[in-house]
Amino acid sequence: MSKDVTIAVDAMGGDGSPKKVIDGISNHYKNSKSTFYRIFGDEDQIKNLIPKTLSNNNFEIVHTKNFVKGTDTPLEAAKRGKDTSMWLAIENVKNKEADTIISAGNTGALLVISKLNLKMIENIDKPALSALWPNKKGMSVVLDLGANIECNDKNLVDFAIMGSSLFKSLFPNETAKVALLNIGSEEIKGNEVIKSTYQKLNQIHKEEQYEFKGYIEGNSLMNGEVNVIVADGFTGNVALKTAEGTANFITSELKKAMKSSLLGKISGLLSYINLNQFKQRLDPRLYNGAIFIGLDSPVIKSHGSTDYIGFSNSLSVCEKIVKGDLINKIKKNIS
Amino acid sequence: MSKDVTIAVDAMGGDGSPKKVIDGISNHYKNSKSTFYRIFGDEDQIKNLIPKTLSNNNFEIVHTKNFVKGTDTPLEAAKRGKDTSMWLAIENVKNKEADTIISAGNTGALLVISKLNLKMIENIDKPALSALWPNKKGMSVVLDLGANIECNDKNLVDFAIMGSSLFKSLFPNETAKVALLNIGSEEIKGNEVIKSTYQKLNQIHKEEQYEFKGYIEGNSLMNGEVNVIVADGFTGNVALKTAEGTANFITSELKKAMKSSLLGKISGLLSYINLNQFKQRLDPRLYNGAIFIGLDSPVIKSHGSTDYIGFSNSLSVCEKIVKGDLINKIKKNIS
Repeated sequence: MSKDVTIAVDAMGGDGSPKKVIDGISNHYKNSKSTFYRIFGDEDQIKNLIPKTLSNNNFEIVHTKNFVKGTDTPLEAAKRGKDTSMWLAIENVKNKEADTIISAGNTGALLVISKLNLKMIENIDKPALSALWPNKKGMSVVLDLGANIECNDKNLVDFAIMGSSLFKSLFPNETAKVALLNIGSEEIKGNEVIKSTYQKLNQIHKEEQYEFKGYIEGNSLMNGEVNVIVADGFTGNVALKTAEGTANFITSELKKAMKSSLLGKISGLLSYINLNQFKQRLDPRLYNGAIFIGLDSPVIKSHGSTDYIGFSNSLSVCEKIVKGDLINKIKKNIS
Repeated sequence: MSKDVTIAVDAMGGDGSPKKVIDGISNHYKNSKSTFYRIFGDEDQIKNLIPKTLSNNNFEIVHTKNFVKGTDTPLEAAKRGKDTSMWLAIENVKNKEADTIISAGNTGALLVISKLNLKMIENIDKPALSALWPNKKGMSVVLDLGANIECNDKNLVDFAIMGSSLFKSLFPNETAKVALLNIGSEEIKGNEVIKSTYQKLNQIHKEEQYEFKGYIEGNSLMNGEVNVIVADGFTGNVALKTAEGTANFITSELKKAMKSSLLGKISGLLSYINLNQFKQRLDPRLYNGAIFIGLDSPVIKSHGSTDYIGFSNSLSVCEKIVKGDLINKIKKNIS
């Protein structure tokens, strides 16, 4: 327990758990000997999955048979009791025994049980769901992705501060550049909430925290000119999902075109070899999961459908956020 | 003037006009001898661009020196007077001398001058900007794309009716399948306006007009299960622009990967040959422009930056809409 970072891990959520979770821990451990994993779940299943390479000094299993189901509503999940692996993991953070909590389980349940157990950061009104997106120059933080359908200007300003704090804790050597997602780059467009947020961010932003770059339109989200993108949860979710859908559509059309002729098959094979770089760059496992921020501990949601590599990447995000002192950055910036 | 379709063409808007516009007309004319083009703009420039192949029976030039600039605000554009090529073209439709109007000029000006001149269709409260999107099975109509930032449930129901009427006039042999863009596919998600629209569409939809398919999330927009996608102008614009931005991002990453090695160059060359099918399928000129619906004549906006092929495709949309009797379809369906 003298490790740098302690992560409370809900081992029972998502497809292929707990195996995926334990394999993810093993993979993460290879490059990070200073992390302690407190693993919540069914010990009978988990202990057989733990590889010999994982030092006993780096993990502990907290046994429970009870767990939240993927099909539970948030209310049903909360009613399952305080001995689910998810609840216990969150409670562990609440009790300051861990620095952060990760789960690949039910998103709605995770948000609700986190809100029930953890306090809001003072002066933040609503927590937000954020994620990493690729852009031409690196990665962006985008928030909110659906935790808050309706937002006022204060909420959006909070998101800007939390998003830039998150960006800085993940990428300490880069400058956070904040933009508001809107439908026009001129000051006159957008609804009243967005216009008012624009005015506030223009007044309050401090150069040492982030640069405010004004509005951004959907077609510029990935050009890398900004790296913290702020929207209400409805708009942010539509943008994220539409980007996913477009990427899937293009990839499937590309595959169709490549398979449509003999020449296509040959060139497809060559491209396959070479496109590894392309694929690696856009591997969704790199951008796996979401970070729920605004509570006094960060809560990390790994995609339920990702594999152990994706889960391992999310553990790296946990580690960076804790080492980057995210919560204190937010507290300092919000005041 | 005994032609099937008369199109009022603003020849002076967009990049490379009037040449692009006239070349677009020539291209469209090759496959459509029954269209009459009434061309508004600077006769001195236009007449030298008209090819000999274009029969005198198929066009007429209405001379004016005045035109709306790309940088005009809508108010400035309207103040330029009633003798701009855009105003005159719209007025020609108002006077029932043409069936529809097309411009590659200033979008805001086109919307405002159209609203000043043309009546709303009875029982439609707000006109909407719609466009065509590719999907895995064909094309979808998406609306609103930015004409109305704030919408109530009545507006969204109107958009569903107008969008499905547009779809049916473009693709008479297909079934219009309407969905509401939302952030969850379950009935409980979304804001109050969307939930109320859902209830109304569920009650009023008539099988002969369209099938109502419920909610759709951004990641399913292009899977082809639905073909009429309804959103308020803010959400629709964010989705459209984000899809564009994602497509550009992926294409540029793909090019980078293909150029990064000798093997890549060879495979890139092979792919280039074969990817024509892919490119043709996703050629933005196929989806060029937007259709402003809700006024008692359709108003077609071609992208300012498209080339003559794109403009020609928009002329085909004009022709299909008129032959498909769009306005009467809407009137019949709205009542």
